[in-house]
Amino acid sequence: MARIKLILEYDGSNYHGFQIQKNAPTIQEKLEQGIFRLTGEKASLLCAGRTDAGVHALGQVVAFDTQSNIPPAKWKFALNSVLPSDIQVLDSQEVNPVFHPRYHAVKKKYLYLIYRREQGTTFYRKYAFCTAELLNVGAMRKSCQMIEGRRNFRSFCASGSSVKDFVRTVTRCRLRENKSYIKMEIEADGFLYKMVRIIMGTLLEVGRGNYPAEYIKEIIGAQDRSMAGPTAPPQGLYLVSVDYLNEGTV
Amino acid sequence: MARIKLILEYDGSNYHGFQIQKNAPTIQEKLEQGIFRLTGEKASLLCAGRTDAGVHALGQVVAFDTQSNIPPAKWKFALNSVLPSDIQVLDSQEVNPVFHPRYHAVKKKYLYLIYRREQGTTFYRKYAFCTAELLNVGAMRKSCQMIEGRRNFRSFCASGSSVKDFVRTVTRCRLRENKSYIKMEIEADGFLYKMVRIIMGTLLEVGRGNYPAEYIKEIIGAQDRSMAGPTAPPQGLYLVSVDYLNEGTV
Repeated sequence: MARIKLILEYDGSNYHGFQIQKNAPTIQEKLEQGIFRLTGEKASLLCAGRTDAGVHALGQVVAFDTQSNIPPAKWKFALNSVLPSDIQVLDSQEVNPVFHPRYHAVKKKYLYLIYRREQGTTFYRKYAFCTAELLNVGAMRKSCQMIEGRRNFRSFCASGSSVKDFVRTVTRCRLRENKSYIKMEIEADGFLYKMVRIIMGTLLEVGRGNYPAEYIKEIIGAQDRSMAGPTAPPQGLYLVSVDYLNEGTV
Repeated sequence: MARIKLILEYDGSNYHGFQIQKNAPTIQEKLEQGIFRLTGEKASLLCAGRTDAGVHALGQVVAFDTQSNIPPAKWKFALNSVLPSDIQVLDSQEVNPVFHPRYHAVKKKYLYLIYRREQGTTFYRKYAFCTAELLNVGAMRKSCQMIEGRRNFRSFCASGSSVKDFVRTVTRCRLRENKSYIKMEIEADGFLYKMVRIIMGTLLEVGRGNYPAEYIKEIIGAQDRSMAGPTAPPQGLYLVSVDYLNEGTV
């Protein structure tokens, strides 16, 4: 028995999120089907972050146990030969049998992409939030600074989560912009349910002038989801990478 | 009766090319269905370039006649409300009733995109030719220079074309590259069937060292398709724009 860790890239457009569900295609289902085709084994996949429908990944991490004799580094090629082309394995390796992609993660990084156009968005509509609104990026940047730090992020957690501890440490929350894009990079030791999209939805309200930049402090202090802005659309969100101590070999 | 000119952007991934055909979705079909839904009229669409299956457009030009009283500039919004999201109208205007998008075109511009990776191509596989081959871009550039000019391009015309005159004037054929991409921009007064993809396929052979850069002159001189390289894949090709005198109002 070996535990295999995979790093994955996927286009979430055609899937109802990562986690397996009845009567809808998911990333987990395609991966488990791929493993079954290769080995006949019914693997149970563990993952670092259960991305929602339409959300993309550049570096999702999953793990599963197998008795097959496929060499760990060859799993990448084996799975890519049976997976749909919108899911690609970037790396495969054997890890310690206790390795858990979510519990052992020490840092996760997300990207949220805004494409500054409303017209001529054919090639972006599934890969960014497209808007031609005039946004005050300076004010949004100020709000970002107030998000960094160890805080209770309950105001940025969607209902439907069973989490009890809402304290997370955001080590980085930055906006970069050019004529075409606004990109938010956010890194933390962990994220609450829909946290990045609610943060982005709130920053957009700041950018529109509906909230002053400093209001983000009050939102955080309130620990109340109804104080924050709406949830930004999924297609702009990318799970970029997940970091582990000892490169994930535990 | 008014003739309406549209400028279109589309993602060709899910279509069997521009031109209408039985039992397969095409761009033309979706546009004619859209016009029918808005007006009840069975329009016959004229287009500037019949793109192949999987080929994209950033500025395709089409025209059709209508008796409806939709104001010309509103056609853009009306059609976008009924078209699938991978086809977008960027502009609509009334033109002279004799305007023909192909016959009156004075210049067309295409882009061919190579993404220099074989792995981690999930978001590019439908929008570029992905390859990690080491290509001699300097040699490819030399070949590009030999393509510019007024020449008989029969060697770069796929069979299945009814064209008799193979002479075209390529006013520009340039390669730009960076770490991630190689882009070919090519402009001419007109293009033969699959000409851009055959030129790119031939340039790739030069880049691989299979042909010397100067061999392109012999290929042109031979006026024989079998001398040129293979046809490069469709997903890297974009119809960028079509130019007319008097902004296409004839």
